[in-house]
Amino acid sequence: MNVPPSEKIGHGTPRLSINRWTCRTTGVQEFLEATASHGIDAVGLWRQDVAEVGLDALRRRVDDAGLRVSTLCRGGFLTASADADRAAALEDNRRAIDEATGLGAPTLVLVVGGVDRADKDIVGARARVTEAIAELAPYAEERGVTLSLEPLHPMFAADRAVLSTIDQALDMAEASGSPAAGVVVDTYHVWWDPYLPRAIQRAAEADRLFSYQVCDWNLPLAAEPLNSRGYMGDGYIDFPSITSMIRGAGYTGDIEVEIFHEDVWATPVDDALRIIAERFEQLVLPHA
Amino acid sequence: MNVPPSEKIGHGTPRLSINRWTCRTTGVQEFLEATASHGIDAVGLWRQDVAEVGLDALRRRVDDAGLRVSTLCRGGFLTASADADRAAALEDNRRAIDEATGLGAPTLVLVVGGVDRADKDIVGARARVTEAIAELAPYAEERGVTLSLEPLHPMFAADRAVLSTIDQALDMAEASGSPAAGVVVDTYHVWWDPYLPRAIQRAAEADRLFSYQVCDWNLPLAAEPLNSRGYMGDGYIDFPSITSMIRGAGYTGDIEVEIFHEDVWATPVDDALRIIAERFEQLVLPHA
Repeated sequence: MNVPPSEKIGHGTPRLSINRWTCRTTGVQEFLEATASHGIDAVGLWRQDVAEVGLDALRRRVDDAGLRVSTLCRGGFLTASADADRAAALEDNRRAIDEATGLGAPTLVLVVGGVDRADKDIVGARARVTEAIAELAPYAEERGVTLSLEPLHPMFAADRAVLSTIDQALDMAEASGSPAAGVVVDTYHVWWDPYLPRAIQRAAEADRLFSYQVCDWNLPLAAEPLNSRGYMGDGYIDFPSITSMIRGAGYTGDIEVEIFHEDVWATPVDDALRIIAERFEQLVLPHA
Repeated sequence: MNVPPSEKIGHGTPRLSINRWTCRTTGVQEFLEATASHGIDAVGLWRQDVAEVGLDALRRRVDDAGLRVSTLCRGGFLTASADADRAAALEDNRRAIDEATGLGAPTLVLVVGGVDRADKDIVGARARVTEAIAELAPYAEERGVTLSLEPLHPMFAADRAVLSTIDQALDMAEASGSPAAGVVVDTYHVWWDPYLPRAIQRAAEADRLFSYQVCDWNLPLAAEPLNSRGYMGDGYIDFPSITSMIRGAGYTGDIEVEIFHEDVWATPVDDALRIIAERFEQLVLPHA
């Protein structure tokens, strides 16, 4: 489908990328074809897709659909303290970096891991993440891939990510000494941050703003709070304001829609993509 | 029961205060008597108690039980933009300050309010809170009461509090120009903050650290996430470390146990207080 963006069918939404998990109930081939058919240029893929299809085959399918890969999700889970667990996590992350390279994805998203309930040592867990990033970033740099540290909403600090803010991600990235470590700004996770404008500006000035992901914050929270991510416009997030901060910081990359919500997963993929493209054009694109 | 703390019956837990909502399924009189019978000196009360019993009668009951009131919960909800709503909120907060004075509570806890889903303007909501605090703080100061701004966990930013961190609370408090505006540090809400040591130190240096409240962060989150607050030791929070920060910052006031959890509410009050006193002596008191 290698037609110029201006001639694409469907909604024609430059810079829009669809994260695979937004349509996780659709098979990967159907997802790629549906995305391309809506005139969307890029997708964020998951390592589960690589495991299912195979790296080379997945790359061919993406190329055949005329798509780019905006991110690979996800590496990370780097908080283990036992030597063997730590070595295994580092090795798994090197494989994830290799997969990002193989897919032509510019960046690998990292969810850094949570707290061990036995020791409750969040400070120690963060220190181990910082060390691991310093070890992995040169490996990524040599392969032309960046590491996008993902600050997760603080409600996931215990079980998923001891990394909660953009500033904290930048502290970790800068400690690596490598330009390949940076941050992904996901509206769901950071919209509440009182120092958001300053933190986004800092990320941009450090050349470490590697990805921008959008979805809304819906209430009430789902039983699995990860799945309260909604279509832009359905919740509380001010997309024009946050997107303007991202633009003001000079970010010109893809903008990935990453929604986890049972209702979205129950919606036929073409309908979901149509809604996403409409909301993107209303709330995000004019400010991007 | 005006006996010195060293001679009190029960567990003998100096500085321990029990927040009323921890035992909300117990009647207020029984709550006061049970607390005193465990050798505990202080309670945090709620405005619902004032409404139920009457201010003067409640003060007498507290005095008769030999207790002090460590905090009154809660004022706030200051984000409304309509003039009439705003005036009503300010007036309600003046009444709350009066009630704190009447109960001899040194501080009124404020939950500042959430975002209007219609405008999604979290920045504007915060500005209105800052203005309101500047208006209310002198009123409190004249009456010898402080205002404890409560940063709530960011998962409540949409519906309960656009104030999410200690630093942000201090910014608001300092903007008031009054020494009567400060912060309450509640472990449930701030334990995840990567800059917690620095923020607690800042609060202390500004003489604005007015209250310390403890409970644990339990998973999975309850359907109403407020009610995931557990007994200290049951979740992920490192009480020795956070309490040491509070001590290092020079805080010598009451430490209030504020647990919201269906299991605790279903436990007979004497059993709940016994567990609380034990956990407090194990995890908090040695570091306080």
